[in-house]
Amino acid sequence: MATARWIKILVICCSALIVRAAAAADISGNYIAQITTTPTAEPQFARVSIKIEGAAVSGLWGDYRISGSVTGAKLNLALSDAQSTAVGTLSGTVSGASLSGGGLLVPARGRAGAGGGFGGGGGRGGAASAPQPVTWKLTPYTPPATPKTYDFEPKSFYSIYSANWTPVLHIYPGDTVRTRTIDNARDANAVRYGSGGDPSTGPFYIEGALPGDTLVVHLVKVRANRNSARQGSRINAHAVTAAYLVGAKYDPDFNSEWTLDIDKQVAALTHPTERLKGFTVPIKTMLGCISVAPAGEEQLRGTDLGPFGGNMDYNDNVEGTTLYFPVSHAGALFGIGDAHAAMGDGELTGAALETSADVEFTVDIIKGESYPQVRAETKDYLISFGVTGSVEESIQASTTQLVQWLKKDYKMSDSEVALFLGAVLKYDITELVDPHFNVVAKVPKTALAQLK
Amino acid sequence: MATARWIKILVICCSALIVRAAAAADISGNYIAQITTTPTAEPQFARVSIKIEGAAVSGLWGDYRISGSVTGAKLNLALSDAQSTAVGTLSGTVSGASLSGGGLLVPARGRAGAGGGFGGGGGRGGAASAPQPVTWKLTPYTPPATPKTYDFEPKSFYSIYSANWTPVLHIYPGDTVRTRTIDNARDANAVRYGSGGDPSTGPFYIEGALPGDTLVVHLVKVRANRNSARQGSRINAHAVTAAYLVGAKYDPDFNSEWTLDIDKQVAALTHPTERLKGFTVPIKTMLGCISVAPAGEEQLRGTDLGPFGGNMDYNDNVEGTTLYFPVSHAGALFGIGDAHAAMGDGELTGAALETSADVEFTVDIIKGESYPQVRAETKDYLISFGVTGSVEESIQASTTQLVQWLKKDYKMSDSEVALFLGAVLKYDITELVDPHFNVVAKVPKTALAQLK
Repeated sequence: MATARWIKILVICCSALIVRAAAAADISGNYIAQITTTPTAEPQFARVSIKIEGAAVSGLWGDYRISGSVTGAKLNLALSDAQSTAVGTLSGTVSGASLSGGGLLVPARGRAGAGGGFGGGGGRGGAASAPQPVTWKLTPYTPPATPKTYDFEPKSFYSIYSANWTPVLHIYPGDTVRTRTIDNARDANAVRYGSGGDPSTGPFYIEGALPGDTLVVHLVKVRANRNSARQGSRINAHAVTAAYLVGAKYDPDFNSEWTLDIDKQVAALTHPTERLKGFTVPIKTMLGCISVAPAGEEQLRGTDLGPFGGNMDYNDNVEGTTLYFPVSHAGALFGIGDAHAAMGDGELTGAALETSADVEFTVDIIKGESYPQVRAETKDYLISFGVTGSVEESIQASTTQLVQWLKKDYKMSDSEVALFLGAVLKYDITELVDPHFNVVAKVPKTALAQLK
Repeated sequence: MATARWIKILVICCSALIVRAAAAADISGNYIAQITTTPTAEPQFARVSIKIEGAAVSGLWGDYRISGSVTGAKLNLALSDAQSTAVGTLSGTVSGASLSGGGLLVPARGRAGAGGGFGGGGGRGGAASAPQPVTWKLTPYTPPATPKTYDFEPKSFYSIYSANWTPVLHIYPGDTVRTRTIDNARDANAVRYGSGGDPSTGPFYIEGALPGDTLVVHLVKVRANRNSARQGSRINAHAVTAAYLVGAKYDPDFNSEWTLDIDKQVAALTHPTERLKGFTVPIKTMLGCISVAPAGEEQLRGTDLGPFGGNMDYNDNVEGTTLYFPVSHAGALFGIGDAHAAMGDGELTGAALETSADVEFTVDIIKGESYPQVRAETKDYLISFGVTGSVEESIQASTTQLVQWLKKDYKMSDSEVALFLGAVLKYDITELVDPHFNVVAKVPKTALAQLK
């Protein structure tokens, strides 16, 4: 729902600015501004629209209003906030399709951190402290008229979540990618960036995705694409008592390889014990790893998970599910990996029915709005993830995010949300055995549909 | 399944002993032995069968073999274990239907604690340490030929879990009770034993249930029996972040009373806000409290929960569910209360849709076998509860108990169980807001049905 609204807003904004004035330098249009204070600080971003009439420049720099002039390739801009208070003076030059320069700029108040710094996206309220010296660059943002579909054959995989990897493909909101994921062990010859397990396909750079936005990923297709999977055969120490572990008699030669019948979508053990001969599980291919780049300079191994997603191991991250990621870096840097043909809650054996998969996904952006962690939506549920260092905190994180989501999108009061969740909330214990815990809080859409 | 097997064994045992010899004192039959060491120690129990042929006494005292003689009302018994090692000498007198006396007895090795002390039920292995002076009493155990159904109108309720309350009704395995539960606030005039909330109906004394046994309770009927329920309207601090709680703006006058349409089995708010006007939840009446008496001299308030059950607040403890309780006291001392017309996972608002209910249940016993905590079974799942002081430990307790259950009843190895649970396990976060946490680990019966 939210997505549709934002697309509409995007369309309206684009239409309003599509009329380019034929002035000095023809720089009318939409841009992404990258603003740098010191070379070691994280860059800040803002969406900028410029309109030229004669030598006069008007438009928006995030939430700030632009007034100024252009003479030949030289540009002078004054920025003011909603209260008409001056918040910055910038000068620069036009060079090809881009513009760059320097100046003084007051960081927008309100949302701290990524994206909100200099009028970008979510700056709430008026001007703040003293202006800071900045350098800036405007890059044109011109999405294609119609969305594209890419068939992307991956040539490399990364097993460290990081903003450092070079994107393998640049796509725009609305675009679709058909690609595949690989398994940990079975594709050992693949080019791998970063050591460790759970390699991801990507990162995909989503043009126009800025820190502070939400990346929307709809999983159009997620299908195991080979006829085998391998599973762990010992229960992870997080899920059982120490007393049990001490006494457990595990067979070191136990064979936990599965044969996947892709046509029938059923998995059976390849070399079952006598007792497990009739045991089958329905194939429900899920993506164990699905992520954007973690915030700042964080680098986490492929088996880890966090507010950026990663190895979330949710057994409903399947075909048909839509995920919402908080964007921390320009382009979002989206990736997928670690397909499981099936998995019980919590991934007790550390490795589920690990396999490889064909995946098709479509991306979109919700601008200037993001939540602390990943969210999702299936046909039946609105889903909030909570990834933290303990199960209790994960419960609190996922529940609280769900509360905020309902308050915002369904305009409920705290009391209404409390009553509503008290009656209909469901939890899933998603990931118990990796470096962080993941608990899902979710509400049925049938209940949401009843709200006025 | 397990139940049926035990009933069969019971029937065979009874048949074998039904032929009473017409000797000195006609004491052939089945008894419950209560064995006391010091007056302050917990009594121990054993199932005893006695056969008289002339003056000779034979039979079983738990796992021990009896040989001895009876002269008039005087009885002398020698007990020996499976290895024919002498483990005790007892003497006593017959007085009416009962027998009592004293002697020396070696506690059976193996299972420590309730029930296993003196050959009772689960004594594994042979004799142990030195014989101890004991006094003993045998009470005849003669279940009626056919099960009975009781319509029990409660006149009192207890809101402290304890072995101290006088049982309100004595029933036998196979018997059925039709009764009702009351709500916390709405039946304030009821006779109440113990202060605090969540009053239970009972305790019901199940004849023949001994420490170390499992009490089986099948919920034949659980139905809200009035047209109203009241819910909490604030989220408990365990389920959300402190930051949220600080900022939450709860309406102190928020009306969270529900109207229950018993015919349609649907609940709607009695005085809904504008937004919640169309909001309804299906009625799924559950028993928030269901318990046996806690071990030893423990006394816990009605809102608490533990290995004995209590305020477990599982939203699948509904009509059709069968529960298995570890018995800690003779008679088990079973009780029910705290009906909810519906409840989201975790009982976020502290009070769910609190109401009263008509309940019908049937009881049974699995002799000499119990698990650390409560278990259950629905049409679809085998369910293990884990009640502890943290969510993590609850996960470990419930998972481990499920592992042991599968190993025992389904004869699976540790490796087989690990693989099986890794593929099909489900968790429910059941109770977050009471003095202890409750997490359910469960497996679908469809998967179990495939095991050889």
